[in-house]
Amino acid sequence: MLFHIRMDVRLPRDLPDDEAAAILAREKAYSQQLQASGKWRHIWRLAGEYANFSIFDVSGNEELHQILTGLPLFPFMEIEVTPLLRHPSSIRDDDS
Amino acid sequence: MLFHIRMDVRLPRDLPDDEAAAILAREKAYSQQLQASGKWRHIWRLAGEYANFSIFDVSGNEELHQILTGLPLFPFMEIEVTPLLRHPSSIRDDDS
Amino acid sequence: MLFHIRMDVRLPRDLPDDEAAAILAREKAYSQQLQASGKWRHIWRLAGEYANFSIFDVSGNEELHQILTGLPLFPFMEIEVTPLLRHPSSIRDDDS
Amino acid sequence: MLFHIRMDVRLPRDLPDDEAAAILAREKAYSQQLQASGKWRHIWRLAGEYANFSIFDVSGNEELHQILTGLPLFPFMEIEVTPLLRHPSSIRDDDS
Amino acid sequence: MLFHIRMDVRLPRDLPDDEAAAILAREKAYSQQLQASGKWRHIWRLAGEYANFSIFDVSGNEELHQILTGLPLFPFMEIEVTPLLRHPSSIRDDDS
Amino acid sequence: MLFHIRMDVRLPRDLPDDEAAAILAREKAYSQQLQASGKWRHIWRLAGEYANFSIFDVSGNEELHQILTGLPLFPFMEIEVTPLLRHPSSIRDDDS
Amino acid sequence: MLFHIRMDVRLPRDLPDDEAAAILAREKAYSQQLQASGKWRHIWRLAGEYANFSIFDVSGNEELHQILTGLPLFPFMEIEVTPLLRHPSSIRDDDS
Amino acid sequence: MLFHIRMDVRLPRDLPDDEAAAILAREKAYSQQLQASGKWRHIWRLAGEYANFSIFDVSGNEELHQILTGLPLFPFMEIEVTPLLRHPSSIRDDDS
Amino acid sequence: MLFHIRMDVRLPRDLPDDEAAAILAREKAYSQQLQASGKWRHIWRLAGEYANFSIFDVSGNEELHQILTGLPLFPFMEIEVTPLLRHPSSIRDDDS
Amino acid sequence: MLFHIRMDVRLPRDLPDDEAAAILAREKAYSQQLQASGKWRHIWRLAGEYANFSIFDVSGNEELHQILTGLPLFPFMEIEVTPLLRHPSSIRDDDS
Repeated sequence: MLFHIRMDVRLPRDLPDDEAAAILAREKAYSQQLQASGKWRHIWRLAGEYANFSIFDVSGNEELHQILTGLPLFPFMEIEVTPLLRHPSSIRDDDS
Repeated sequence: MLFHIRMDVRLPRDLPDDEAAAILAREKAYSQQLQASGKWRHIWRLAGEYANFSIFDVSGNEELHQILTGLPLFPFMEIEVTPLLRHPSSIRDDDS
Repeated sequence: MLFHIRMDVRLPRDLPDDEAAAILAREKAYSQQLQASGKWRHIWRLAGEYANFSIFDVSGNEELHQILTGLPLFPFMEIEVTPLLRHPSSIRDDDS
Repeated sequence: MLFHIRMDVRLPRDLPDDEAAAILAREKAYSQQLQASGKWRHIWRLAGEYANFSIFDVSGNEELHQILTGLPLFPFMEIEVTPLLRHPSSIRDDDS
Repeated sequence: MLFHIRMDVRLPRDLPDDEAAAILAREKAYSQQLQASGKWRHIWRLAGEYANFSIFDVSGNEELHQILTGLPLFPFMEIEVTPLLRHPSSIRDDDS
Repeated sequence: MLFHIRMDVRLPRDLPDDEAAAILAREKAYSQQLQASGKWRHIWRLAGEYANFSIFDVSGNEELHQILTGLPLFPFMEIEVTPLLRHPSSIRDDDS
Repeated sequence: MLFHIRMDVRLPRDLPDDEAAAILAREKAYSQQLQASGKWRHIWRLAGEYANFSIFDVSGNEELHQILTGLPLFPFMEIEVTPLLRHPSSIRDDDS
Repeated sequence: MLFHIRMDVRLPRDLPDDEAAAILAREKAYSQQLQASGKWRHIWRLAGEYANFSIFDVSGNEELHQILTGLPLFPFMEIEVTPLLRHPSSIRDDDS
Repeated sequence: MLFHIRMDVRLPRDLPDDEAAAILAREKAYSQQLQASGKWRHIWRLAGEYANFSIFDVSGNEELHQILTGLPLFPFMEIEVTPLLRHPSSIRDDDS
Repeated sequence: MLFHIRMDVRLPRDLPDDEAAAILAREKAYSQQLQASGKWRHIWRLAGEYANFSIFDVSGNEELHQILTGLPLFPFMEIEVTPLLRHPSSIRDDDS
């Protein structure tokens, strides 16, 4: 089941540099593992913003919530969730 | 070059049924031709709404504008454009 | 899988009375059939507004979309969808 | 009398971990006691957010206010209150 | 039980004058009867606007909804409902 | 002359408890003195919020400003002012 | 007593030209008479908009309401009212 | 050339009292000098708010910017600029 | 003196095609004459929208207003005006 | 390819003066180098605000993102990106 997620990152200015670096490294590993598993289907950067649009393919709301709240950056993010489905005009096999 | 587009359709209530049907048929053909060409990379329906999220892969702003204003439904749509780029954590070849 | 839906009804003033009555009767039958089937889990009226909050229990985004766009009042509604899950503090068996 | 409540939790970053844990434990106990009493009728988590939708069944505005301002997390919450009533299409005995 | 209501009236321009006059007369009679009964506790006009702030004292959400949707101007109003209670600093007997 | 005021209180978390208690005690005394004088005509609590709706009856904008900026909680409040007048449908002597 | 008013005019497209011209002529006469009387203290056009900022000097909310709702353009305006008072830094005799 | 300015002051709570007093004294002197010169044409306080509406008469955008950014309170203000011109219905010599 | 203008065009659906074409032709001629004169310094289309960002170089607010309200499309536009000045970091002779 | 950017600067009050001065000096050098290269085509100050409108001419979204996130002030800015293209009515060679 597909979900469209927008994530906006707001790192507090007083977060120590090494702590920030450690969180970002964990975030990257976490994201790439989920991409490899097929659950984090797409991720794009928004030009000029510390934000991404992502597509998740998960078993349902419960799994989506576990994945999102497990993000190392979760405490520093605003997250917007939109449930998706196959578009009737789509011709791609992998858009559903 | 990638763009994220949200389209919300608002068909006026006094649009005659056959006129609406003809526009929707032209819209579907137009969309599928662009999908086949690779320019309209993805399209998903938002659950419960007459709207879609799409990803376009075009040569630039000029081509994007020609495609969007050429949509048969363009006069009945609200369109929101966000320029995208490859995310540094992405592991997919086709997300850039 | 649970979804929280807010529906706001806006009947156009020039909708003939008998047409409106017919739509509302179909809407009520449609809603009660879905309630009986267990898919439309709850529905409440908002005090002073022509609106409701509802809880749906469906197999996923796809089924939710089919149900919502099938509402006889769908063309006259604003709909807001929020995916839900069981709350960790819940003690009710039927809130998941 | 029924009320729909949305609660968004915003824990300040400088709240010590043990203080946060103690508040959350008190919050859970407080919530479950009210659920057991029937006053906190439903509670659901919003997917991807530190927030819940709840339904309260109380004697009136006064009792609702006492319950909400008594929440251990009250100082860290944004709360939105909507008075509800039985929907004329409802077929459930316990939605009023 | 007390409720604070804001009502904004938007009469459509194509409403015939005599029809508008009849609705306004019924609205005034309806309002004054409810004021006389004590259920519509206060009503004030907002300077420069076709709007009012009102205080209702009713048995609960259900009665409030019946009263508001029974307003002859209801189809032409935007209504905003806020549940109230006695303020701990109040010294007036009749503010609760 | 009548004014409708909405006050939302936002006490900063680092305000020492005794300082907060002292401000709140001064606020209550200030409010009750103005209520006794007839200038602060009504005050109600909003259910679930640290906020009130109030009605002031003062000689004009100047006096209203002196009273509001004199509130001990003024530095911690958001205030919204709406000038009122007697509603043409009102039947109460004391709503003007 | 002083009030700051913003007026935005929205003439409907189907208002016949001669009717519009008659309303605008009445509006101008009405405004100039009130300016001559001293009650409509200032009026300025906003560059690029069909709107004005005005300052009124009236006996109170009641008179302000009578003047504003008496504007020939009142049914076609959005009006925003802000009560003013003399600023403590003002050196002009006529800004109070 | 005329400009309408709204200024909202937000003094941070941790600004030492004597520093705040010094800034406010400089602000008052700065404002009154510009009023005396005719460049700061009007200033009014908004009832119940730490804010003012002002009218400036300057040679153009450049001078307006120099004056506004030179305000001692500039770092603590939100400023909203609206270019004005003489209203065609104005009868006052000094409203242009 | 420089101004930044955003114009959003909303042609009503019931505007006859030949009337629309005539307005658009007059608009284009009007715009190009002002561009040739140097008063309409820049104009760009927003990708995917029936809108433009423009830079005007005029003698002041008065002339700006005459130009904007003289646009053949003015009755069908939303216009947003922002006064500009030379940026202290600019190295271009023609950005002031 | 052209982009319209709005940048709003919010320097935190606790940023040491010399650190701020160093960042601003680096920002100016960075901006002027990009202006000299032709990539930062225009920059204007908004009157009364710590903000600018800029036009960039870059190879695409990727280069735009590298430039914007490389701004020394990037951590202290809100940035809004709008893709542009040549307007069909433009007569300037250098507006595309």
